[in-house]
Amino acid sequence: MGLPDGFYVRRIEEKDFEQVTETLKVLTTVGTIAPESFGKLIKYWNEATVWDDNNDKKIMQYNAIVIVDKHTEKIAATGNIFIEKKIIHELGLCGHIEDIAVNSKYQGQGLGKLLIDELVTIGYGYGCYKIILDCDEKNVKFYEKCGFSNAGVEMQIRK
Amino acid sequence: MGLPDGFYVRRIEEKDFEQVTETLKVLTTVGTIAPESFGKLIKYWNEATVWDDNNDKKIMQYNAIVIVDKHTEKIAATGNIFIEKKIIHELGLCGHIEDIAVNSKYQGQGLGKLLIDELVTIGYGYGCYKIILDCDEKNVKFYEKCGFSNAGVEMQIRK
Ligand SMILES: CC(C)(COP(=O)(O)OP(=O)(O)OC[C@H]1O[C@@H](n2cnc3c(N)ncnc32)[C@H](O)[C@@H]1OP(=O)(O)O)[C@@H](O)C(=O)NCCC(=O)NCCS
Ligand SMILES: CC(C)(COP(=O)(O)OP(=O)(O)OC[C@H]1O[C@@H](n2cnc3c(N)ncnc32)[C@H](O)[C@@H]1OP(=O)(O)O)[C@@H](O)C(=O)NCCC(=O)NCCS
Repeated sequence: MGLPDGFYVRRIEEKDFEQVTETLKVLTTVGTIAPESFGKLIKYWNEATVWDDNNDKKIMQYNAIVIVDKHTEKIAATGNIFIEKKIIHELGLCGHIEDIAVNSKYQGQGLGKLLIDELVTIGYGYGCYKIILDCDEKNVKFYEKCGFSNAGVEMQIRK
Repeated sequence: MGLPDGFYVRRIEEKDFEQVTETLKVLTTVGTIAPESFGKLIKYWNEATVWDDNNDKKIMQYNAIVIVDKHTEKIAATGNIFIEKKIIHELGLCGHIEDIAVNSKYQGQGLGKLLIDELVTIGYGYGCYKIILDCDEKNVKFYEKCGFSNAGVEMQIRK
């Protein structure tokens, strides 16, 4: 399934600083970030790679993308999939989807689902044997519509 | 809290190949792994680092450890915490605990809890604002005893 007319997807870039931090506020606390620090983060995300024994592809560890409104160049949604190299499943790759946010003006138009589809395509493209994410109970139905199913309980500890 | 007498903790090493893969079988499918490939994985895990803007410490991306029985040099337990650099929470670090397994001969002696304590100490030492893990419903009580609490639902998709 492709994106609806009027939108395109690309990897996150340094220039997305203001719009991405704004978009992520629907999800959680973003806090104060210096633009230079954001630039360094993007550089790190662009350089971090995962060793893969199964093929010659260079696997990017972090794959943060944005969905952009063509008409206004506004960022409608953002999300990330990072790749973890494991011992189990024959030195398998596991994809972790993180920090999914659709700008509130753009919710309910199918962009969330398309964002997840794009991230899953990236993860499967690298050969991940599974892709996981954690969500609130209230979003389980949404992720079921994206093809995911319940796999367990997320537990956390904070300082 | 320290380890009980007779055990020590260290980072995983290449020589642990057979015992670690054996230990992980209580958890899930390990499959066939060539010893050389395992060696390359350990090398990759030892080299992958996370960029951190907040201090000068070198942060290791993967922190797989083993608990070893001093008397026999047998590996009693293994687990990993890897560190993800995010945008949210002021470019925060999130720790992900993965692939926890206590050899069945060593279960029920407090080693599981000590393993989790060690991994949490590593994550907090790097400055993680939170540490998360996914588990089966049947292990929730165990993780509550380790100080964790329910944070959401784990969803997955597999090819
Ligand atoms: C949750 C979120 C990502 C969904 O994105 P969206 O663009 O609004 O969702 P879509 O329009 O792509 O929805 C796809 C399908 O899921 C359904 N859906 C979306 N959210 C749902 C929910 N919370 N409960 C039930 N169904 C839901 C839609 O009705 C649609 O169904 P359809 O295909 O039958 O029409 C988005 O609303 C969001 O960013 N919310 C705030 C932040 C957040 O909660 N992030 C996720 C943290 S786990
Ligand atoms: C789950 C597991 C890691 C626990 O390790 P362990 O060494 O057996 O547990 P500990 O002895 O450290 O237990 C610490 C406390 O948790 C309790 N506990 C352990 N497992 C429990 C369970 N499944 N349900 C309820 N309580 C549990 C213990 O009774 C103990 O309580 P106490 O401090 O009051 O005496 C281990 O049994 C294991 O590896 N199981 C198989 C693989 C697995 O399920 N991995 C985790 C996947 S999410």
